[in-house]
Amino acid sequence: MTSLDKHNRMANAIRFLSMDAVQKANSGHPGLPMGAADVATVLFTRFMRFDPKNPDWPNRDRFVLSAGHGSMLLYSLLYLLGYEDMTIDDIKNFRQLGSKTAGHPEYGHASGIETTTGPLGQGIANALGMAIAERKLANEFGDELMDHYTYALCGDGCLMEGISQEAISLAGHLKLNKFVLFWDNNSITIDGAVSLSDSTDQIARFKACNWHTIDIDGHNPDEIAAAIEEAHKSDKPTLIACKTTIGYGAPKKAGTNKVHGSPLGDEEIAATRKALGWEYPAFEVPEEILDAWRVAGLRSTKTRVEWEKKLNAAKADVKAEFNRRFAGDLPGSFDRAIQKYKKELAEEKPTLASRKSSQNALEVINGVVPETFGGSADLTGSNNTNTSQTAPITPDDFSGRFMHWGIREHAMAAAMNGIALHGGLIPYSGGFLIFSDYCRTSVRLAALMGIRVIHVWTHDSIGVGEDGPTHEPVEQMASLRAVPNLLMFRPADAMETAECWQLALESKDAPSGIALTRQNLPAVRTKYTEKNLCATGAYDLIPANDADVTIFAAGSEVGLAVEAQKTLDGKGISTRVVSVPCMELFFEQPEDYQKAIIGNSPIKVGVEAGVRMGWDQFIGSDGIFIGMTGYGASGKGEALFEHFGITADAVVKAVEKKRA
Amino acid sequence: MTSLDKHNRMANAIRFLSMDAVQKANSGHPGLPMGAADVATVLFTRFMRFDPKNPDWPNRDRFVLSAGHGSMLLYSLLYLLGYEDMTIDDIKNFRQLGSKTAGHPEYGHASGIETTTGPLGQGIANALGMAIAERKLANEFGDELMDHYTYALCGDGCLMEGISQEAISLAGHLKLNKFVLFWDNNSITIDGAVSLSDSTDQIARFKACNWHTIDIDGHNPDEIAAAIEEAHKSDKPTLIACKTTIGYGAPKKAGTNKVHGSPLGDEEIAATRKALGWEYPAFEVPEEILDAWRVAGLRSTKTRVEWEKKLNAAKADVKAEFNRRFAGDLPGSFDRAIQKYKKELAEEKPTLASRKSSQNALEVINGVVPETFGGSADLTGSNNTNTSQTAPITPDDFSGRFMHWGIREHAMAAAMNGIALHGGLIPYSGGFLIFSDYCRTSVRLAALMGIRVIHVWTHDSIGVGEDGPTHEPVEQMASLRAVPNLLMFRPADAMETAECWQLALESKDAPSGIALTRQNLPAVRTKYTEKNLCATGAYDLIPANDADVTIFAAGSEVGLAVEAQKTLDGKGISTRVVSVPCMELFFEQPEDYQKAIIGNSPIKVGVEAGVRMGWDQFIGSDGIFIGMTGYGASGKGEALFEHFGITADAVVKAVEKKRA
Repeated sequence: MTSLDKHNRMANAIRFLSMDAVQKANSGHPGLPMGAADVATVLFTRFMRFDPKNPDWPNRDRFVLSAGHGSMLLYSLLYLLGYEDMTIDDIKNFRQLGSKTAGHPEYGHASGIETTTGPLGQGIANALGMAIAERKLANEFGDELMDHYTYALCGDGCLMEGISQEAISLAGHLKLNKFVLFWDNNSITIDGAVSLSDSTDQIARFKACNWHTIDIDGHNPDEIAAAIEEAHKSDKPTLIACKTTIGYGAPKKAGTNKVHGSPLGDEEIAATRKALGWEYPAFEVPEEILDAWRVAGLRSTKTRVEWEKKLNAAKADVKAEFNRRFAGDLPGSFDRAIQKYKKELAEEKPTLASRKSSQNALEVINGVVPETFGGSADLTGSNNTNTSQTAPITPDDFSGRFMHWGIREHAMAAAMNGIALHGGLIPYSGGFLIFSDYCRTSVRLAALMGIRVIHVWTHDSIGVGEDGPTHEPVEQMASLRAVPNLLMFRPADAMETAECWQLALESKDAPSGIALTRQNLPAVRTKYTEKNLCATGAYDLIPANDADVTIFAAGSEVGLAVEAQKTLDGKGISTRVVSVPCMELFFEQPEDYQKAIIGNSPIKVGVEAGVRMGWDQFIGSDGIFIGMTGYGASGKGEALFEHFGITADAVVKAVEKKRA
Repeated sequence: MTSLDKHNRMANAIRFLSMDAVQKANSGHPGLPMGAADVATVLFTRFMRFDPKNPDWPNRDRFVLSAGHGSMLLYSLLYLLGYEDMTIDDIKNFRQLGSKTAGHPEYGHASGIETTTGPLGQGIANALGMAIAERKLANEFGDELMDHYTYALCGDGCLMEGISQEAISLAGHLKLNKFVLFWDNNSITIDGAVSLSDSTDQIARFKACNWHTIDIDGHNPDEIAAAIEEAHKSDKPTLIACKTTIGYGAPKKAGTNKVHGSPLGDEEIAATRKALGWEYPAFEVPEEILDAWRVAGLRSTKTRVEWEKKLNAAKADVKAEFNRRFAGDLPGSFDRAIQKYKKELAEEKPTLASRKSSQNALEVINGVVPETFGGSADLTGSNNTNTSQTAPITPDDFSGRFMHWGIREHAMAAAMNGIALHGGLIPYSGGFLIFSDYCRTSVRLAALMGIRVIHVWTHDSIGVGEDGPTHEPVEQMASLRAVPNLLMFRPADAMETAECWQLALESKDAPSGIALTRQNLPAVRTKYTEKNLCATGAYDLIPANDADVTIFAAGSEVGLAVEAQKTLDGKGISTRVVSVPCMELFFEQPEDYQKAIIGNSPIKVGVEAGVRMGWDQFIGSDGIFIGMTGYGASGKGEALFEHFGITADAVVKAVEKKRA
């Protein structure tokens, strides 16, 4: 058997596993795995460094299937390469409820799935994040411990999505030369030919973004190997444009959109078996081919063992730090530093914008948690996400801890996912809350994957002021609270901001968003408590037995709730104030706690400079809500709060009216 | 005075109005208006066709300030050119509550503001939509009536946002040669130099996307004029890269990020006055310069009058149709066609996926409403947004009524905004509901502007099935319902789908989203009613006096609510079913109606295959909710409904448990 024959048969193993699995499920996308099988075979059997027996090896090469619909490509690879938790039964159960082999690759379902993909373009930016993490950690721990490639495979759809431009322009700017992107250039999308909707010269586009580019026949293993070797030598990220035939091998359907997202059908599969000389039944890979794959799977074991030796040979503190970082554990000094800071805050009782309180908290955090990796989407001075420790990263110097992401909220969020997935770093962003809309898909994917990324979203209400309704979040808190497994914090003052930061950093299985103000807020938490009061999501800020009125408020509106409470109490109306920094955490509390906090006041008031949605859980559908019912306006922030009736006085009047 | 002197003084009028207004407001962005004043002066005084006395002239050239933070550029232009509703007092009231001159340009605040901008990149795609609308209407009504340019001005930030790539790649593909984009190439963003985060060769990037490109000194009026003339001759869209100095004229701050988003300060303004030889006090434009602007403002009056003559000379039906289309009124035949179709549905009682019901409704609508303009983001066969009337538009033939938007949800939504703003067409999209996350910013802007765009969002729940949680909307209905002034429809069957389409088309002041299923739904509305029952947002589908139980449900879950009702009634538990096709319309109804619909049943149940958020308004915080609490899974759709307990049986059991 010539080496070409062997290659072809190994690639055909991917093709038939994929088409047979899709056929059995009667659902899925055979076209991409069949078309990209040659690229994947060359990459995984000759270049990719990984160890199926130690899939979490920190210095493994990363592979991201950005075109996630081609999931059977990845599942086939994992099975063939000998990943133990991907069996032939898993392949047979493709797309069935409870199986590892979901319709699109899902992080956590099986080893070797580096990220969840499916929504197009995301994977390119995830890979960008992984490549950034690699360079950053290499700078910190040395090439001995961190020195790997990040590969991604994308389709035409990924390149049409806007996020791709954000990712490739930043990758090119940063000269991420260990980032190699394969473009499965098959000229077909769901609707038909790419030419129905696009005529971009992708090679020229990538060149314009400072990429090295190589254009090859994606079915020629020699060209594929040569291209990867060339990419490894480049001082820029490399695009390998692989001209492929979608559904390669299927006599009638190859090269058409018919093979993109539907089973081939028994007849066409039989014809493909004949055309490719594959005489084995469904799900059977002949021993010699499986052996060849399994041998290839173990190629890098020796490299991994050598790497372990290097890690063991490192200084004890370096090794401990490296392991801690990849375990995702915070340093022991973290809690102590927060407690000390909280004591200072209790003394100082500062009146500050919470974006500034956040920066102060970060100054403490970044001093003791070296793995935080900050940034901003070109709003550094507004988001206050930089601290004395965070020098910016530049294309030629990754010693910094701060990324100027540019005006690229979407790629920032998706790259942060990649950084978190890579391990060793905890990324936090900087952006305006309103622009969370630009990156919702990536935020959702972080929540679905359950990874620790932290979004710092400042300018969180009409308090934005003069910039007006295009920049004033109104529905963003509600819409983000609706995202399952996303912790949305909206702290009321400096103390709560510190506590929310602590909770976000300690949340290993869920991403967080921290909504912060542009405008100053008075201190409402003026006493030190060792306990993190925000941890229960909502708590008695001003308790009162048998209160006539309970005011529930979040963020900047807690201060006015406190003010209203004073006035009402002065009028003999017993009033309690509950601060609600995180609804999600509250609804995770025991039912007794929830009931006690919600309480039995005859009048319940919710106050937030946003829409009511979500607050009915606290105040009931007959409760009073003081907030927004539509968009904001351009004007001075204080004038807007008056104009929209979000004031302590409005709370008092509404309560008195209801009692009358 | 040489013509260059005159130009400079006219441009300086923009500069000083802008810097003085920002200074007075103590808030705003002087840098862009000062830098782009030369480009704007040449464009508006020598090329743009418009008539300040008839600002809505359908064949006017369109201008979009994509870099919306430079709003003072636009306000200055409108005032100088003689738009009657932009006075010097409006300029003085920049960024004050209630003023027309909001922080960012807001559509509807004053004539000549063609779209609301601020979130970066949006304007480029709005302009794309306007340019598409122009070509489409030119094809339909002839160049005599429709033949104008669309100009946009963007900054570096717009070009970093991913949406820009989606827009420019599609514009290049479509060969929109009457689309001219000025890039205010000032190399500065908020954080500092563009080089902090980007090194893209923008000229090469646009060339790769099939644009004509011209690189000029953006302060040289001759070069600006020559470039525009050259652009007019191109057979492709044109990028005019204008090298400018941000804050041009300010001795100390020009060319730095200090002038981007802050007032210059009195001292620097005085120095700028000196440097540019501008000896007039704040807000004063010398008569000769104002006159020159006003004369320029009236340049195209004759052209407009001639155009009116052409319209008047057209056949009566053409003229009537043109005027109807630009008035935004639906044809008289529309309601009749819907009524006829509803009668047919009452006869047929079809069991259909609502995406298919939508296509059937569209077949009727597109037959009588020629201004509908359909499309899909590469999911035509899944969204079912094509009908027998909608041939696709191609780069060389705009006679079609369907756009293959490509995998570009964001640009699709933003371009639809541009199409609606242009007038003459009603755009509707096609996409998966989950991917509404990709285009939320544009959807929100449509809602903020109050324009008629219709989003067809199919695959609206776990009914998606095997594609799994990355493709299954869970929180999207809630998060879109949170957007003020967006009508979110979720019809239960073919009849409701027809009614929701009617409501969406009749909604001139609010965009709509129609959430539709992949899976089949039984007919729950089996009788013809002339009245559109969906118009009240929620209505008694199965009434019952003094019901023990009321089930509120939407979309695909109405069928199972009906099933549960039968079982419960059979057990002697009197049960009522309320269908909730549109929460927003319901909460616009008189309070009496709302109270009657919500009713007094001791047990209230909400059913929707999504999160609970929003349903408490119907069922109260103690109501039963049958829906999702987290993400979906990959598996057969029916199996998923069983797995997640969203079944008629689950409703019955929950009711029985509560009664026990």
